[in-house]
Amino acid sequence: MPQVSRSADSTPPARQRERRQRVQAAETGMAVLTGLGRLGGRASLTALAAQVAESPAKVHRYLVSLMEAGLVGQDAATQQYYLGLESLLLGLSAMRQADPIRMAEASLVRLREALEVTCFVAVMGNKGPTIVRIEEPGLPVTVNVRAGSVLSMLWSATGRVLLATLDESAVRALARAELQAADAEQRAQLDPDDPIGALQRSVRAAGCAVVRDTNLRGISAVAAPLYNYTGRPCAVLTALGASGGFDPSPDGAVARALRDEARTVSTLLGYTGQ
Amino acid sequence: MPQVSRSADSTPPARQRERRQRVQAAETGMAVLTGLGRLGGRASLTALAAQVAESPAKVHRYLVSLMEAGLVGQDAATQQYYLGLESLLLGLSAMRQADPIRMAEASLVRLREALEVTCFVAVMGNKGPTIVRIEEPGLPVTVNVRAGSVLSMLWSATGRVLLATLDESAVRALARAELQAADAEQRAQLDPDDPIGALQRSVRAAGCAVVRDTNLRGISAVAAPLYNYTGRPCAVLTALGASGGFDPSPDGAVARALRDEARTVSTLLGYTGQ
Repeated sequence: MPQVSRSADSTPPARQRERRQRVQAAETGMAVLTGLGRLGGRASLTALAAQVAESPAKVHRYLVSLMEAGLVGQDAATQQYYLGLESLLLGLSAMRQADPIRMAEASLVRLREALEVTCFVAVMGNKGPTIVRIEEPGLPVTVNVRAGSVLSMLWSATGRVLLATLDESAVRALARAELQAADAEQRAQLDPDDPIGALQRSVRAAGCAVVRDTNLRGISAVAAPLYNYTGRPCAVLTALGASGGFDPSPDGAVARALRDEARTVSTLLGYTGQ
Repeated sequence: MPQVSRSADSTPPARQRERRQRVQAAETGMAVLTGLGRLGGRASLTALAAQVAESPAKVHRYLVSLMEAGLVGQDAATQQYYLGLESLLLGLSAMRQADPIRMAEASLVRLREALEVTCFVAVMGNKGPTIVRIEEPGLPVTVNVRAGSVLSMLWSATGRVLLATLDESAVRALARAELQAADAEQRAQLDPDDPIGALQRSVRAAGCAVVRDTNLRGISAVAAPLYNYTGRPCAVLTALGASGGFDPSPDGAVARALRDEARTVSTLLGYTGQ
Protein backbone atom coordinates (compact mmCIF):
# COMPACT_ATOMS: atom_id res chain seq x y z
CA MET A 1 0.00 0.00 0.00
CA PRO A 2 1.55 3.36 -0.95
CA GLN A 3 2.56 5.66 1.87
CA VAL A 4 0.57 8.67 0.61
CA SER A 5 -2.73 6.90 0.19
CA ARG A 6 -2.59 5.35 3.67
CA SER A 7 -1.85 8.71 5.20
CA ALA A 8 -4.68 10.42 3.27
CA ASP A 9 -7.16 7.69 4.26
CA SER A 10 -6.43 7.15 7.91
CA THR A 11 -4.61 10.06 9.50
CA PRO A 12 -7.32 12.74 9.68
CA PRO A 13 -9.89 10.48 11.43
CA ALA A 14 -7.17 9.23 13.76
CA ARG A 15 -6.15 12.76 14.65
CA GLN A 16 -9.78 13.71 15.11
CA ARG A 17 -10.27 10.75 17.42
CA GLU A 18 -7.15 11.72 19.36
CA ARG A 19 -8.38 15.30 19.72
CA ARG A 20 -11.75 14.09 20.98
CA GLN A 21 -9.97 11.90 23.53
CA ARG A 22 -7.81 14.78 24.65
CA VAL A 23 -10.81 17.07 25.08
CA GLN A 24 -12.60 14.29 26.96
CA ALA A 25 -9.58 13.93 29.25
CA ALA A 26 -9.60 17.67 29.94
CA GLU A 27 -13.30 17.40 30.76
CA THR A 28 -12.65 14.58 33.22
CA GLY A 29 -9.96 16.71 34.89
CA MET A 30 -12.41 19.60 35.23
CA ALA A 31 -15.12 17.27 36.54
CA VAL A 32 -12.74 16.05 39.27
CA LEU A 33 -11.89 19.66 40.15
CA THR A 34 -15.48 20.95 40.27
CA GLY A 35 -16.58 17.69 41.95
CA LEU A 36 -14.16 18.42 44.80
CA GLY A 37 -15.73 21.88 45.02
CA ARG A 38 -19.22 20.41 45.21
CA LEU A 39 -18.08 18.19 48.10
CA GLY A 40 -17.25 21.37 50.02
CA GLY A 41 -13.63 21.60 48.88
CA ARG A 42 -12.30 18.54 50.79
CA ALA A 43 -12.93 14.82 50.29
CA SER A 44 -11.41 11.35 50.33
CA LEU A 45 -10.49 9.66 47.04
CA THR A 46 -13.42 7.25 47.48
CA ALA A 47 -15.97 10.03 48.01
CA LEU A 48 -14.58 12.04 45.09
CA ALA A 49 -14.60 9.02 42.73
CA ALA A 50 -18.24 8.38 43.68
CA GLN A 51 -19.08 12.05 43.10
CA VAL A 52 -17.70 12.06 39.54
CA ALA A 53 -18.72 8.44 38.80
CA GLU A 54 -15.23 7.29 37.78
CA SER A 55 -12.88 4.64 39.20
CA PRO A 56 -10.63 5.71 42.12
CA ALA A 57 -7.54 4.78 40.05
CA LYS A 58 -8.60 7.07 37.20
CA VAL A 59 -9.57 9.93 39.54
CA HIS A 60 -6.22 9.53 41.29
CA ARG A 61 -4.31 10.07 38.01
CA TYR A 62 -6.16 13.34 37.43
CA LEU A 63 -5.63 14.40 41.05
CA VAL A 64 -1.87 14.05 40.55
CA SER A 65 -2.06 16.56 37.68
CA LEU A 66 -4.37 18.84 39.64
CA MET A 67 -1.89 18.78 42.54
CA GLU A 68 1.00 19.59 40.22
CA ALA A 69 -0.98 22.61 38.99
CA GLY A 70 -1.55 23.70 42.62
CA LEU A 71 -5.32 23.48 42.17
CA VAL A 72 -5.59 20.63 44.68
CA GLY A 73 -3.62 19.70 47.80
CA GLN A 74 -3.51 16.54 49.89
CA ASP A 75 -3.66 16.47 53.66
CA ALA A 76 -0.73 14.40 54.98
CA ALA A 77 -2.59 13.32 58.11
CA THR A 78 -5.99 12.35 56.66
CA GLN A 79 -4.98 11.66 53.01
CA GLN A 80 -7.97 13.79 52.01
CA TYR A 81 -7.77 16.02 48.96
CA TYR A 82 -8.68 19.69 49.22
CA LEU A 83 -8.92 22.67 46.87
CA GLY A 84 -5.55 24.40 46.91
CA LEU A 85 -4.17 27.89 46.55
CA GLU A 86 -4.52 28.07 42.74
CA SER A 87 -8.24 27.29 43.09
CA LEU A 88 -8.53 30.09 45.63
CA LEU A 89 -6.68 32.54 43.35
CA LEU A 90 -8.88 31.43 40.44
CA GLY A 91 -11.92 32.26 42.55
CA LEU A 92 -10.54 35.69 43.42
CA SER A 93 -10.05 36.44 39.70
CA ALA A 94 -13.56 35.15 38.96
CA MET A 95 -14.97 37.40 41.67
CA ARG A 96 -13.39 40.43 40.05
CA GLN A 97 -15.27 39.44 36.87
CA ALA A 98 -18.58 38.86 38.66
CA ASP A 99 -19.75 42.37 37.97
CA PRO A 100 -23.49 43.04 38.48
CA ILE A 101 -23.62 45.38 35.49
CA ARG A 102 -22.18 42.83 33.09
CA MET A 103 -24.08 39.92 34.61
CA ALA A 104 -27.40 41.77 34.41
CA GLU A 105 -27.06 42.67 30.72
CA ALA A 106 -29.00 39.71 29.36
CA SER A 107 -31.71 40.18 32.00
CA LEU A 108 -32.13 43.86 31.06
CA VAL A 109 -32.61 42.90 27.42
CA ARG A 110 -35.11 40.15 28.30
CA LEU A 111 -37.13 42.46 30.55
CA ARG A 112 -37.16 45.24 27.97
CA GLU A 113 -38.33 42.85 25.25
CA ALA A 114 -40.86 40.89 27.28
CA LEU A 115 -42.46 43.82 29.09
CA GLU A 116 -41.58 46.79 26.84
CA VAL A 117 -40.41 48.75 29.86
CA THR A 118 -37.38 50.88 30.66
CA CYS A 119 -35.13 48.89 32.95
CA PHE A 120 -31.83 49.54 34.62
CA VAL A 121 -29.20 48.44 37.11
CA ALA A 122 -28.36 50.85 39.93
CA VAL A 123 -25.75 50.71 42.66
CA MET A 124 -25.29 52.66 45.88
CA GLY A 125 -23.04 55.57 44.89
CA ASN A 126 -21.61 58.20 47.21
CA LYS A 127 -24.50 60.58 46.41
CA GLY A 128 -27.22 57.93 46.57
CA PRO A 129 -28.71 55.17 44.35
CA THR A 130 -27.06 55.66 40.94
CA ILE A 131 -28.07 54.20 37.57
CA VAL A 132 -25.08 52.47 35.94
CA ARG A 133 -26.72 50.64 33.00
CA ILE A 134 -30.06 51.31 31.34
CA GLU A 135 -32.09 49.66 28.55
CA GLU A 136 -35.02 51.45 26.93
CA PRO A 137 -37.75 49.99 24.68
CA GLY A 138 -38.29 51.14 21.09
CA LEU A 139 -40.87 53.68 22.23
CA PRO A 140 -39.49 54.81 25.57
CA VAL A 141 -41.58 56.50 28.22
CA THR A 142 -40.21 60.01 28.56
CA VAL A 143 -38.41 59.78 31.87
CA ASN A 144 -35.50 61.95 32.77
CA VAL A 145 -33.19 59.14 33.91
CA ARG A 146 -30.00 57.90 32.29
CA ALA A 147 -26.74 56.22 33.29
CA GLY A 148 -25.27 58.40 36.04
CA SER A 149 -28.65 59.64 37.35
CA VAL A 150 -28.85 59.68 41.15
CA LEU A 151 -32.24 58.56 42.47
CA SER A 152 -34.12 59.29 45.66
CA MET A 153 -33.31 57.03 48.60
CA LEU A 154 -36.79 57.23 50.09
CA TRP A 155 -39.16 57.90 47.17
CA SER A 156 -37.77 55.73 44.35
CA ALA A 157 -38.33 51.95 44.21
CA THR A 158 -34.57 51.55 43.66
CA GLY A 159 -33.71 53.57 46.77
CA ARG A 160 -36.23 51.67 48.86
CA VAL A 161 -34.64 48.33 47.93
CA LEU A 162 -31.21 49.62 49.04
CA LEU A 163 -32.76 51.08 52.21
CA ALA A 164 -34.34 47.71 53.04
CA THR A 165 -31.33 45.52 52.27
CA LEU A 166 -28.14 47.54 52.91
CA ASP A 167 -27.23 48.02 56.55
CA GLU A 168 -25.12 51.15 56.06
CA SER A 169 -25.14 54.39 58.01
CA ALA A 170 -24.81 56.46 54.80
CA VAL A 171 -28.01 54.89 53.46
CA ARG A 172 -29.96 55.57 56.68
CA ALA A 173 -28.62 59.15 56.87
CA LEU A 174 -29.75 59.91 53.30
CA ALA A 175 -33.22 58.47 53.98
CA ARG A 176 -33.61 60.48 57.19
CA ALA A 177 -32.53 63.70 55.41
CA GLU A 178 -35.11 63.07 52.65
CA LEU A 179 -37.77 62.36 55.26
CA GLN A 180 -37.07 65.66 57.00
CA ALA A 181 -37.27 67.53 53.70
CA ALA A 182 -40.55 65.82 52.71
CA ASP A 183 -43.79 67.78 52.43
CA ALA A 184 -47.07 66.76 54.11
CA GLU A 185 -48.36 64.95 51.00
CA GLN A 186 -45.21 62.82 50.76
CA ARG A 187 -45.18 62.02 54.48
CA ALA A 188 -48.82 60.92 54.29
CA GLN A 189 -47.69 58.00 52.06
CA LEU A 190 -45.55 56.56 54.85
CA ASP A 191 -46.28 54.96 58.21
CA PRO A 192 -46.82 57.81 60.71
CA ASP A 193 -45.11 56.02 63.64
CA ASP A 194 -42.14 54.34 61.94
CA PRO A 195 -41.89 55.69 58.38
CA ILE A 196 -38.52 54.14 57.48
CA GLY A 197 -38.83 50.92 59.50
CA ALA A 198 -42.27 50.08 58.08
CA LEU A 199 -40.99 50.72 54.55
CA GLN A 200 -38.01 48.40 55.09
CA ARG A 201 -40.21 45.63 56.47
CA SER A 202 -42.67 45.78 53.58
CA VAL A 203 -39.88 45.67 50.96
CA ARG A 204 -38.21 42.73 52.70
CA ALA A 205 -41.52 40.86 52.93
CA ALA A 206 -42.33 41.38 49.22
CA GLY A 207 -38.76 40.78 47.96
CA CYS A 208 -39.16 43.95 45.90
CA ALA A 209 -40.18 47.61 46.16
CA VAL A 210 -43.01 49.11 44.15
CA VAL A 211 -43.90 52.80 43.71
CA ARG A 212 -46.73 54.43 41.77
CA ASP A 213 -46.45 58.16 41.07
CA THR A 214 -44.36 58.52 44.24
CA ASN A 215 -41.06 59.65 42.81
CA LEU A 216 -42.14 60.85 39.37
CA ARG A 217 -45.77 61.66 38.52
CA GLY A 218 -47.29 59.25 36.02
CA ILE A 219 -44.47 56.76 36.46
CA SER A 220 -44.57 53.43 38.26
CA ALA A 221 -41.55 51.33 39.12
CA VAL A 222 -40.67 47.93 40.55
CA ALA A 223 -37.19 47.14 41.91
CA ALA A 224 -35.52 44.02 43.33
CA PRO A 225 -32.10 43.47 44.95
CA LEU A 226 -29.13 41.69 43.31
CA TYR A 227 -26.98 39.70 45.73
CA ASN A 228 -23.44 38.50 45.11
CA TYR A 229 -21.23 35.65 46.41
CA THR A 230 -20.68 37.44 49.73
CA GLY A 231 -24.44 37.30 50.38
CA ARG A 232 -24.63 41.09 50.32
CA PRO A 233 -26.87 43.18 48.04
CA CYS A 234 -24.53 44.71 45.47
CA ALA A 235 -27.00 46.37 43.06
CA VAL A 236 -30.68 46.83 42.23
CA LEU A 237 -32.60 45.76 39.14
CA THR A 238 -35.47 48.17 38.33
CA ALA A 239 -38.23 48.36 35.72
CA LEU A 240 -40.30 51.49 35.17
CA GLY A 241 -43.10 52.61 32.87
CA ALA A 242 -46.09 54.92 32.52
CA SER A 243 -48.49 54.22 35.40
CA GLY A 244 -51.29 53.59 32.88
CA GLY A 245 -49.89 50.48 31.20
CA PHE A 246 -47.78 49.09 34.00
CA ASP A 247 -48.86 46.82 36.85
CA PRO A 248 -46.88 47.94 39.90
CA SER A 249 -48.40 45.45 42.37
CA PRO A 250 -45.93 43.15 44.16
CA ASP A 251 -47.77 40.13 42.69
CA GLY A 252 -48.15 41.56 39.19
CA ALA A 253 -46.47 40.36 36.00
CA VAL A 254 -43.73 43.02 36.12
CA ALA A 255 -42.77 42.30 39.74
CA ARG A 256 -42.76 38.55 39.12
CA ALA A 257 -40.56 38.83 36.01
CA LEU A 258 -38.26 41.28 37.77
CA ARG A 259 -37.81 39.09 40.83
CA ASP A 260 -37.11 36.09 38.58
CA GLU A 261 -34.45 37.99 36.62
CA ALA A 262 -32.93 39.36 39.85
CA ARG A 263 -32.60 35.80 41.13
CA THR A 264 -30.98 34.72 37.84
CA VAL A 265 -28.43 37.54 38.03
CA SER A 266 -27.71 36.85 41.72
CA THR A 267 -26.99 33.20 40.87
CA LEU A 268 -24.55 34.35 38.16
CA LEU A 269 -22.86 36.54 40.80
CA GLY A 270 -22.25 33.46 42.95
CA TYR A 271 -25.08 34.05 45.42
CA THR A 272 -25.93 30.75 47.08
CA GLY A 273 -28.25 31.93 49.88
CA GLN A 274 -32.04 31.58 50.05
CA MET B 1 1.74 -13.53 14.60
CA PRO B 2 -0.29 -15.06 17.43
CA GLN B 3 -2.90 -12.86 19.03
CA VAL B 4 -1.65 -13.36 22.60
CA SER B 5 1.98 -12.49 21.94
CA ARG B 6 1.05 -9.31 20.05
CA SER B 7 -1.22 -8.22 22.83
CA ALA B 8 1.44 -8.92 25.45
CA ASP B 9 4.07 -6.97 23.49
CA SER B 10 2.23 -3.90 22.34
CA THR B 11 -0.92 -3.18 24.32
CA PRO B 12 0.45 -2.15 27.70
CA PRO B 13 2.89 0.48 26.27
CA ALA B 14 0.11 1.79 24.00
CA ARG B 15 -2.26 2.10 26.93
CA GLN B 16 0.46 3.76 28.95
CA ARG B 17 1.09 6.20 26.12
CA GLU B 18 -2.62 6.93 25.86
CA ARG B 19 -2.85 7.55 29.60
CA ARG B 20 0.11 9.91 29.46
CA GLN B 21 -1.58 11.80 26.60
CA ARG B 22 -4.83 12.02 28.51
CA VAL B 23 -3.08 13.36 31.61
CA GLN B 24 -1.19 15.82 29.39
CA ALA B 25 -4.49 16.97 27.91
CA ALA B 26 -5.95 17.52 31.38
CA GLU B 27 -2.84 19.53 32.28
CA THR B 28 -3.28 21.74 29.20
CA GLY B 29 -6.91 22.34 30.19
CA MET B 30 -5.83 23.39 33.66
CA ALA B 31 -3.06 25.59 32.26
CA VAL B 32 -5.65 27.41 30.12
CA LEU B 33 -7.88 27.85 33.17
CA THR B 34 -5.17 29.10 35.54
CA GLY B 35 -3.65 31.15 32.68
CA LEU B 36 -6.95 33.03 32.36
CA GLY B 37 -6.80 33.63 36.12
CA ARG B 38 -3.27 35.02 35.84
CA LEU B 39 -4.46 37.43 33.15
CA GLY B 40 -6.87 38.89 35.72
CA GLY B 41 -9.80 36.60 34.87
CA ARG B 42 -10.57 38.06 31.41
CA ALA B 43 -8.63 37.91 28.15
CA SER B 44 -8.83 37.55 24.37
CA LEU B 45 -8.02 34.20 22.75
CA THR B 46 -4.77 35.67 21.38
CA ALA B 47 -3.60 36.91 24.78
CA LEU B 48 -4.56 33.64 26.46
CA ALA B 49 -2.78 31.53 23.81
CA ALA B 50 0.35 33.64 24.31
CA GLN B 51 0.07 33.25 28.09
CA VAL B 52 -0.03 29.43 27.95
CA ALA B 53 2.34 29.20 24.93
CA GLU B 54 -0.06 27.13 22.80
CA SER B 55 -1.71 27.77 19.43
CA PRO B 56 -4.99 29.74 19.47
CA ALA B 57 -6.75 26.79 17.76
CA LYS B 58 -5.65 24.39 20.50
CA VAL B 59 -6.52 26.83 23.31
CA HIS B 60 -9.92 27.38 21.72
CA ARG B 61 -10.72 23.62 21.85
CA TYR B 62 -9.98 23.60 25.59
CA LEU B 63 -11.98 26.79 26.12
CA VAL B 64 -15.04 25.09 24.62
CA SER B 65 -14.76 22.36 27.27
CA LEU B 66 -14.11 24.90 30.01
CA MET B 67 -17.22 26.81 28.91
CA GLU B 68 -19.31 23.64 28.94
CA ALA B 69 -18.15 23.03 32.51
CA GLY B 70 -19.18 26.60 33.44
CA LEU B 71 -15.62 27.44 34.49
CA VAL B 72 -15.24 29.99 31.69
CA GLY B 73 -17.69 32.31 29.92
CA GLN B 74 -17.42 34.36 26.74
CA ASP B 75 -18.50 37.97 26.42
CA ALA B 76 -20.81 38.30 23.41
CA ALA B 77 -19.81 41.91 22.75
CA THR B 78 -16.02 41.70 23.04
CA GLN B 79 -15.50 37.95 22.36
CA GLN B 80 -13.23 37.92 25.42
CA TYR B 81 -13.18 34.91 27.71
CA TYR B 82 -13.66 35.33 31.45
CA LEU B 83 -13.67 33.10 34.52
CA GLY B 84 -17.25 31.95 35.05
CA LEU B 85 -19.51 31.06 37.93
CA GLU B 86 -18.03 27.57 38.51
CA SER B 87 -14.58 29.15 38.96
CA LEU B 88 -16.08 31.54 41.49
CA LEU B 89 -17.79 28.70 43.38
CA LEU B 90 -14.52 26.72 43.28
CA GLY B 91 -12.80 29.70 44.88
CA LEU B 92 -15.44 29.95 47.60
CA SER B 93 -14.92 26.26 48.44
CA ALA B 94 -11.14 26.75 48.42
CA MET B 95 -11.51 29.71 50.79
CA ARG B 96 -13.39 27.55 53.27
CA GLN B 97 -10.35 25.20 53.20
CA ALA B 98 -7.81 28.02 53.59
CA ASP B 99 -7.73 27.64 57.34
CA PRO B 100 -4.80 29.32 59.14
CA ILE B 101 -4.52 26.49 61.65
CA ARG B 102 -4.18 23.80 58.97
CA MET B 103 -2.00 25.96 56.71
CA ALA B 104 0.39 26.81 59.56
CA GLU B 105 0.95 23.19 60.61
CA ALA B 106 4.12 22.61 58.55
CA SER B 107 5.52 25.99 59.66
CA LEU B 108 4.96 25.13 63.33
CA VAL B 109 6.87 21.87 62.91
CA ARG B 110 9.72 23.61 61.03
CA LEU B 111 10.02 26.34 63.68
CA ARG B 112 9.98 23.83 66.54
CA GLU B 113 12.66 21.71 64.88
CA ALA B 114 14.91 24.52 63.67
CA LEU B 115 14.78 26.67 66.80
CA GLU B 116 13.73 24.18 69.51
CA VAL B 117 11.07 26.59 70.71
CA THR B 118 7.42 26.28 71.67
CA CYS B 119 5.36 27.77 68.90
CA PHE B 120 1.67 28.23 68.30
CA VAL B 121 -1.09 29.76 66.20
CA ALA B 122 -3.54 32.07 67.96
CA VAL B 123 -6.69 33.80 66.75
CA MET B 124 -8.75 36.65 68.19
CA GLY B 125 -11.41 34.88 70.30
CA ASN B 126 -14.28 36.53 72.13
CA LYS B 127 -12.25 36.66 75.36
CA GLY B 128 -9.00 37.77 73.72
CA PRO B 129 -6.07 36.23 71.78
CA THR B 130 -6.61 32.46 71.99
CA ILE B 131 -4.16 29.65 71.21
CA VAL B 132 -5.72 27.19 68.77
CA ARG B 133 -2.72 24.99 67.82
CA ILE B 134 0.56 24.50 69.68
CA GLU B 135 3.80 22.59 69.00
CA GLU B 136 6.33 21.95 71.78
CA PRO B 137 9.96 20.79 71.48
CA GLY B 138 11.20 17.55 73.07
CA LEU B 139 12.29 19.41 76.19
CA PRO B 140 9.62 22.06 76.52
CA VAL B 141 10.06 25.21 78.56
CA THR B 142 7.56 24.97 81.39
CA VAL B 143 5.01 27.52 80.30
CA ASN B 144 1.40 27.34 81.34
CA VAL B 145 -0.07 27.75 77.85
CA ARG B 146 -2.00 25.20 75.80
CA ALA B 147 -4.64 25.10 73.07
CA GLY B 148 -7.53 27.17 74.42
CA SER B 149 -5.37 29.49 76.57
CA VAL B 150 -6.42 33.14 76.35
CA LEU B 151 -3.44 35.53 76.28
CA SER B 152 -3.03 39.14 77.29
CA MET B 153 -3.93 41.72 74.65
CA LEU B 154 -1.38 44.25 75.84
CA TRP B 155 1.44 42.25 77.48
CA SER B 156 1.81 39.19 75.21
CA ALA B 157 3.61 39.35 71.85
CA THR B 158 0.58 37.60 70.31
CA GLY B 159 -1.86 40.20 71.68
CA ARG B 160 0.35 43.06 70.52
CA VAL B 161 0.32 41.76 66.93
CA LEU B 162 -3.48 41.65 66.96
CA LEU B 163 -3.61 45.10 68.56
CA ALA B 164 -1.35 46.49 65.82
CA THR B 165 -3.05 44.84 62.86
CA LEU B 166 -6.76 44.35 63.69
CA ASP B 167 -8.87 47.48 63.53
CA GLU B 168 -11.62 46.24 65.85
CA SER B 169 -13.30 48.00 68.76
CA ALA B 170 -13.26 44.80 70.86
CA VAL B 171 -9.46 44.62 70.54
CA ARG B 172 -8.99 48.27 71.54
CA ALA B 173 -11.43 47.93 74.47
CA LEU B 174 -9.53 44.90 75.85
CA ALA B 175 -6.19 46.72 75.54
CA ARG B 176 -7.53 49.82 77.31
CA ALA B 177 -8.97 47.69 80.13
CA GLU B 178 -5.61 45.96 80.60
CA LEU B 179 -3.83 49.32 80.57
CA GLN B 180 -6.11 50.63 83.31
CA ALA B 181 -5.48 47.51 85.40
CA ALA B 182 -1.68 47.73 84.94
CA ASP B 183 0.65 48.45 87.86
CA ALA B 184 3.39 51.14 87.82
CA GLU B 185 6.10 48.66 86.77
CA GLN B 186 4.09 47.48 83.76
CA ARG B 187 3.15 51.02 82.71
CA ALA B 188 6.80 52.05 82.86
CA GLN B 189 7.46 49.65 79.91
CA LEU B 190 5.14 51.61 77.63
CA ASP B 191 5.25 55.08 76.07
CA PRO B 192 3.98 57.55 78.74
CA ASP B 193 2.14 59.79 76.24
CA ASP B 194 0.59 57.26 73.84
CA PRO B 195 1.05 53.77 75.32
CA ILE B 196 -1.15 51.88 72.87
CA GLY B 197 -0.44 53.98 69.75
CA ALA B 198 3.35 53.77 70.20
CA LEU B 199 3.11 50.00 70.68
CA GLN B 200 1.04 49.61 67.48
CA ARG B 201 3.48 51.70 65.45
CA SER B 202 6.53 49.77 66.62
CA VAL B 203 4.91 46.38 65.85
CA ARG B 204 3.85 47.58 62.38
CA ALA B 205 7.35 48.90 61.67
CA ALA B 206 9.07 45.67 62.74
CA GLY B 207 6.49 43.32 61.13
CA CYS B 208 6.45 41.43 64.43
CA ALA B 209 6.05 41.91 68.18
CA VAL B 210 8.72 40.90 70.68
CA VAL B 211 8.43 40.69 74.46
CA ARG B 212 11.03 39.73 77.09
CA ASP B 213 9.76 38.87 80.56
CA THR B 214 6.77 41.18 79.96
CA ASN B 215 3.93 38.71 80.08
CA LEU B 216 5.59 35.80 81.88
CA ARG B 217 8.82 36.15 83.88
CA GLY B 218 11.77 34.36 82.30
CA ILE B 219 9.93 33.92 79.01
CA SER B 220 10.56 35.75 75.74
CA ALA B 221 8.29 35.61 72.71
CA VAL B 222 8.18 36.77 69.11
CA ALA B 223 4.90 36.94 67.12
CA ALA B 224 4.01 37.81 63.53
CA PRO B 225 0.64 38.24 61.78
CA LEU B 226 -0.90 35.78 59.29
CA TYR B 227 -2.91 37.42 56.52
CA ASN B 228 -5.46 35.70 54.27
CA TYR B 229 -6.89 36.29 50.79
CA THR B 230 -9.02 39.20 52.02
CA GLY B 231 -5.85 41.04 53.03
CA ARG B 232 -6.90 40.94 56.69
CA PRO B 233 -4.89 39.46 59.56
CA CYS B 234 -6.66 36.21 60.46
CA ALA B 235 -4.26 34.71 63.04
CA VAL B 236 -0.88 35.11 64.72
CA LEU B 237 2.18 32.85 64.60
CA THR B 238 4.18 32.97 67.85
CA ALA B 239 7.41 31.40 69.14
CA LEU B 240 8.38 31.48 72.80
CA GLY B 241 11.22 30.19 74.95
CA ALA B 242 13.22 30.79 78.13
CA SER B 243 14.67 34.30 77.98
CA GLY B 244 18.17 32.87 78.51
CA GLY B 245 18.50 30.89 75.29
CA PHE B 246 16.20 32.89 73.05
CA ASP B 247 16.99 35.99 71.01
CA PRO B 248 13.88 38.18 71.17
CA SER B 249 15.29 41.09 69.11
CA PRO B 250 13.29 42.03 66.00
CA ASP B 251 16.38 41.31 63.85
CA GLY B 252 17.38 38.09 65.62
CA ALA B 253 17.27 34.57 64.23
CA VAL B 254 13.93 33.71 65.84
CA ALA B 255 12.18 36.85 64.55
CA ARG B 256 13.60 36.36 61.06
CA ALA B 257 12.54 32.69 60.88
CA LEU B 258 9.12 33.54 62.32
CA ARG B 259 8.47 36.34 59.84
CA ASP B 260 9.56 34.07 56.97
CA GLU B 261 7.20 31.30 58.07
CA ALA B 262 4.37 33.81 58.61
CA ARG B 263 4.84 35.02 55.03
CA THR B 264 4.82 31.41 53.77
CA VAL B 265 1.55 30.68 55.59
CA SER B 266 -0.02 33.96 54.38
CA THR B 267 0.82 33.02 50.80
CA LEU B 268 -0.87 29.62 51.32
CA LEU B 269 -3.92 31.50 52.61
CA GLY B 270 -4.13 33.42 49.33
CA TYR B 271 -2.59 36.66 50.59
CA THR B 272 -1.29 38.61 47.61
CA GLY B 273 -0.52 41.98 49.24
CA GLN B 274 2.90 43.43 50.10
